[in-house]
Amino acid sequence: MKKALITGAYGFVGRHVARAAAQQGYLVTALGHGAWGREEWRDWGIQEWRQADVTPETMMTYAGEPDVIFHCAGSGSVFYSVSHPFQDYQRTVSTMLSVLEYIRVHSPGTRLVVPSSAGVYGVAQRMPIRVADPLNPVSPYGVHKRIAEELCQSYAKSFGLQVAIARLFSVYGIGIRKQLIWDACQKMSAGQFGFAGTGDETRDWLHVDDAASLMLTGVAHASRDCPVVNGGTGAAVAIRDVVVQIARELGLSQSPEFSGQVRAGDPVHYQADLEGALAWGWRPQRVLAAELSAYVDWFKRGAP
Amino acid sequence: MKKALITGAYGFVGRHVARAAAQQGYLVTALGHGAWGREEWRDWGIQEWRQADVTPETMMTYAGEPDVIFHCAGSGSVFYSVSHPFQDYQRTVSTMLSVLEYIRVHSPGTRLVVPSSAGVYGVAQRMPIRVADPLNPVSPYGVHKRIAEELCQSYAKSFGLQVAIARLFSVYGIGIRKQLIWDACQKMSAGQFGFAGTGDETRDWLHVDDAASLMLTGVAHASRDCPVVNGGTGAAVAIRDVVVQIARELGLSQSPEFSGQVRAGDPVHYQADLEGALAWGWRPQRVLAAELSAYVDWFKRGAP
Repeated sequence: MKKALITGAYGFVGRHVARAAAQQGYLVTALGHGAWGREEWRDWGIQEWRQADVTPETMMTYAGEPDVIFHCAGSGSVFYSVSHPFQDYQRTVSTMLSVLEYIRVHSPGTRLVVPSSAGVYGVAQRMPIRVADPLNPVSPYGVHKRIAEELCQSYAKSFGLQVAIARLFSVYGIGIRKQLIWDACQKMSAGQFGFAGTGDETRDWLHVDDAASLMLTGVAHASRDCPVVNGGTGAAVAIRDVVVQIARELGLSQSPEFSGQVRAGDPVHYQADLEGALAWGWRPQRVLAAELSAYVDWFKRGAP
Repeated sequence: MKKALITGAYGFVGRHVARAAAQQGYLVTALGHGAWGREEWRDWGIQEWRQADVTPETMMTYAGEPDVIFHCAGSGSVFYSVSHPFQDYQRTVSTMLSVLEYIRVHSPGTRLVVPSSAGVYGVAQRMPIRVADPLNPVSPYGVHKRIAEELCQSYAKSFGLQVAIARLFSVYGIGIRKQLIWDACQKMSAGQFGFAGTGDETRDWLHVDDAASLMLTGVAHASRDCPVVNGGTGAAVAIRDVVVQIARELGLSQSPEFSGQVRAGDPVHYQADLEGALAWGWRPQRVLAAELSAYVDWFKRGAP
């Protein structure tokens, strides 16, 4: 039976990768921090859960020699990276290095698939954003993700590790309790309809199940060339359109209002060029409008 | 009295920066590892020497609120970075982050001057190498130096730290006991005249006193724009010419022989574009031929 180790499996992407890996027949072990019990992580497809930091020491104790590691541990918040840059670095970069060094020394046959972030691009000059475009991250979050990628490239080139990286765009789906879609549900259901920005900003929304399937697809393409692909749907969707649909799904007659003020340094547009991921044979399956509807249904049921 | 903290002051660049800072009137304290006693470090201009790793904890204990930190700690060996990538990373990147985070939290008025390396360029496409040219480091050493630079840029941009970076090319001078000049003295005085490569490879040699003066010059230019300059002399000198002069200075009649074989991935040419450093008002003062002669004299006296 193939074995997969998932770091950061309590996280939103990590748990969906765990389930997808289990469904593909992997024996899944996991390492990270999470406020969940045995029944819950078993329900996400995890056979063994280890509650621990991702360090060289815990990797030596718990990692074994899996066929693949999905390194989903890491920071998930631009805001946090500005208030706590050192801790954000530890979460994203130090854990990445621990995994790479573990594979190099103890399990060189293990493949490694890493979710990175569209945040590495920063303010891009043109759409759609291609993988070879310049990386100009604007936040410590984006800088740390870029550094994690550079370490992957370095270990692949210098030591032959087999790695693949997927730069995920705006991941969403039932269960996420942060970022625009969640915030919009909370605010508007509480009678607040004012939003920052112009509403014309765009994001490329990637359903978390599509993100997970991209990570699983990456296993076969991990190599010492360390390929990098974008994960999105290729569509630039205006934030206004998302918020308006949420208001409608919530049954609210009032319309969202945008301040029109743009925060300096905030990227205005995101749209992924999917060339690499499509060449892997991966296709996004989920349609934003339908998934938004399902999300708001879940929210109205109290986000159980 | 102005105060300077020098990390890695036992190192070849660090000790010369310490002396140069003391000569410019700084009260110099230093932090790092080194096999020297009080008389020796006092002789290098250091008032207080702290034997310790550069970590957030030791910075909090020993750093105080200096006017400037010269962060000279870090790996100095490409070879070591390949055999010990994790330790190389700790030396170069983790110490860098410790210093940046310390300044951000505890001493935001402190200026920071950082020696980086021409190794960040890797195999450059054209000479002379300009600061804005692409960074394609080929070794973990070069990758880690680039990551240290990125962290400096990130902390300068996001948190207003005042930083300046000098990418030093091939630093040499009396006292260095590694790299080409030292190796050539050792080998040829032992009767070995075979060298790798073609001999036509070029390096841009920077005397360590010129490197130190560039670091001191950088203090006034440290800013939240985090300027980066090259440190060299602007001259591409063939390795053959250096080795031939050393043979002559050693009084040897035999000539060095080059294998003609080029190691894949090894950068062939290095030559610094000095625009930024010259704009700072800095000028290299030392002439290679004369300094090589002095170096070989020192070597013949037993490298005391």
